[in-house]
Amino acid sequence: MTAADAPHCKRLSLLGSTGSIGEQTLAVVAAAPERFEVVALAAGRNIEKLADQVRRFRPGLVSVADAAGAAELRERLGSQPVELLVGNEGLKAVAEYPADLVVSALVGAAGLAPTLAAIRAGRDIALANKEVMVTAGALVLREVKAHAVSLLPVDSEHSAIFQALCGQRIEDVERLILTASGGPFRTWTAEQIAEATIEQALNHPNWDMGPKITIDSASLMNKGLEVIEARWLFDIPPERVDVVVHPQSIIHSLVEFVDTSVLAQLGLPDMRVPIAVALAYPERIDLDLPVLDLPALGRLDFETPDRKRFPCLELAFEALRANEAAPAVVNAANEIAVAAFLDGRIRFPEIAATNGAVLNSHVGRGGSGSLRDLADVVEADDWARACAREWIGSTA
Amino acid sequence: MTAADAPHCKRLSLLGSTGSIGEQTLAVVAAAPERFEVVALAAGRNIEKLADQVRRFRPGLVSVADAAGAAELRERLGSQPVELLVGNEGLKAVAEYPADLVVSALVGAAGLAPTLAAIRAGRDIALANKEVMVTAGALVLREVKAHAVSLLPVDSEHSAIFQALCGQRIEDVERLILTASGGPFRTWTAEQIAEATIEQALNHPNWDMGPKITIDSASLMNKGLEVIEARWLFDIPPERVDVVVHPQSIIHSLVEFVDTSVLAQLGLPDMRVPIAVALAYPERIDLDLPVLDLPALGRLDFETPDRKRFPCLELAFEALRANEAAPAVVNAANEIAVAAFLDGRIRFPEIAATNGAVLNSHVGRGGSGSLRDLADVVEADDWARACAREWIGSTA
Repeated sequence: MTAADAPHCKRLSLLGSTGSIGEQTLAVVAAAPERFEVVALAAGRNIEKLADQVRRFRPGLVSVADAAGAAELRERLGSQPVELLVGNEGLKAVAEYPADLVVSALVGAAGLAPTLAAIRAGRDIALANKEVMVTAGALVLREVKAHAVSLLPVDSEHSAIFQALCGQRIEDVERLILTASGGPFRTWTAEQIAEATIEQALNHPNWDMGPKITIDSASLMNKGLEVIEARWLFDIPPERVDVVVHPQSIIHSLVEFVDTSVLAQLGLPDMRVPIAVALAYPERIDLDLPVLDLPALGRLDFETPDRKRFPCLELAFEALRANEAAPAVVNAANEIAVAAFLDGRIRFPEIAATNGAVLNSHVGRGGSGSLRDLADVVEADDWARACAREWIGSTA
Repeated sequence: MTAADAPHCKRLSLLGSTGSIGEQTLAVVAAAPERFEVVALAAGRNIEKLADQVRRFRPGLVSVADAAGAAELRERLGSQPVELLVGNEGLKAVAEYPADLVVSALVGAAGLAPTLAAIRAGRDIALANKEVMVTAGALVLREVKAHAVSLLPVDSEHSAIFQALCGQRIEDVERLILTASGGPFRTWTAEQIAEATIEQALNHPNWDMGPKITIDSASLMNKGLEVIEARWLFDIPPERVDVVVHPQSIIHSLVEFVDTSVLAQLGLPDMRVPIAVALAYPERIDLDLPVLDLPALGRLDFETPDRKRFPCLELAFEALRANEAAPAVVNAANEIAVAAFLDGRIRFPEIAATNGAVLNSHVGRGGSGSLRDLADVVEADDWARACAREWIGSTA
């Protein structure tokens, strides 16, 4: 093989390298080392894990949360040469570092500013941070268009839609159909759900995830947030986004086209697959993982989601119809409500009640609800958290 | 809309306009008249239907089976100007007529020569005629490559694979997975299948088709022929082609990639969809057809096909492994055997027995079994028919 035949080596910057997605991203890179060069890493306070990553992948730039972490990392790395930065300045530098793709895998609101910085620096983005599109979708979409970068989704549902859309025209899409496992309360009555314990809500049938997202799966808020993400990621109006309950989580999502043809992506639940799809696009990486065996599974089931028993799903559509800031408002309210549920301060149905009350208050405030810049996102988020806390306090 | 914005109007030639696929092709054209211009039609002896098509679509060239048909068509058309040709010369002229796409929808071996003529004239092909790839796949693939034309499959399984491959690289494919309904004998024991009547074999669960292809569905020979087609259509070795039984026929086929991701195409059974996909590619046509509703269906089932109860499926793989002519041999033997079964001269399991015996004799003859030109295809076909007749005669 001559150099001209060699696959293009992609330079990756990774925001959030020591988290679950960050670690799995580096596992994918390790599976195809000739295809990728890790040029910059940003992490928080897990310095031991980060030091190991820096030794293995030898990035040029590393960012950590603070100066203490930087000092510890420098000591652990010994003589290995690497530029070290800290805090928001460090995150921005990693986001803007010369690279072909920035993997945005920070957790929560912290990922928004560096992801926007990467977009404004013209970098393509592999997006694993849900909050970016949920809280600031309208703003991010405008920046993505203005800077003509690619936004490659990393979570399984949006990766499925992305893969089904490859080689297709977005104007030929009739509906994006997100699949939902239905969560642990899929077959429960409204009365049973009202009495659900924390342990029952944390018992997700298919995916092993953190407590916040597991509760969101039980309430279908997670699917609602994914509806919001899909609306902005694929620039498609909310009335063209739909949800189907599919308990086995094998079909990760579907796209229906104007000719009634439907394309779907299927697979076993493993985040390394959507990560590899985003990293390698438009090529693919040979992964040594278990393969989907449909006859061994035997059957796939489908149901219509019950928006009465799971009102959080409907709230996401309502937020999208309301204004640009409303999704950030519902998301912030939900974070407060889920924390209150996990603290035992409210019952399960009060999560949706909180979210709905805060959304109603937001709409009642009037104003354009448009997101001109990050400050508008922060304002909506802060306001919604305060509103949710007040509402929970008044009902507790 | 300015002229520059107007969708490109595709010129279509249609080989086999009065058959089922031909009629449905014209129905799709009629649903998007601004997208297509029908420039040439070829049909056989159904002059009344053809005259109606010529009046509606006003092609420049029409071909019919013979001079009597041409005279009748001329009389029916009155003063409408159209060039009329007959026989093989007429088929060739329609195939080579200036067009953007030739729809190859003749039935049986008659389609092979005009389809090759269209390829050699540099025309892209929408291929509905199964025999073209089954009997001459190796030869057709070489011509397709030599003339750099596109081959767009029209039957539902291969259209599904084609759609799943859009935007993907063929070198990233791990497996093509054709789905099979399993036919009316899916749940029958070998002993029950041995006693199957003609009426039982003709009772296909999902598709309403002609008797030959319905018998082939019952024996899984149809799926075997589709395996052969897939091998040549997508230029993929037979060990990368697999079959899964899926009784509901909603997933029309799947593609597994090297990263274990699987893309599938789904839809209600309606041939207008794959026809529209082939005609409109790389765009899509808005079709006013019923839409797939997965929750209404409830479930999709999958099984491993039983190659012992359905030996015709395994014979297709054996033929592909044998040599280039072997698929034509198995196909010709199967035509003779199915006709004998429909005549009540042999029992159902003797279809597979005939096909296997003729394939064994073919391999036993030695020789390269390569397909250099059409004469080699005709020779293999003629020999296999004679061999099958002899074998059936000796066992009857």
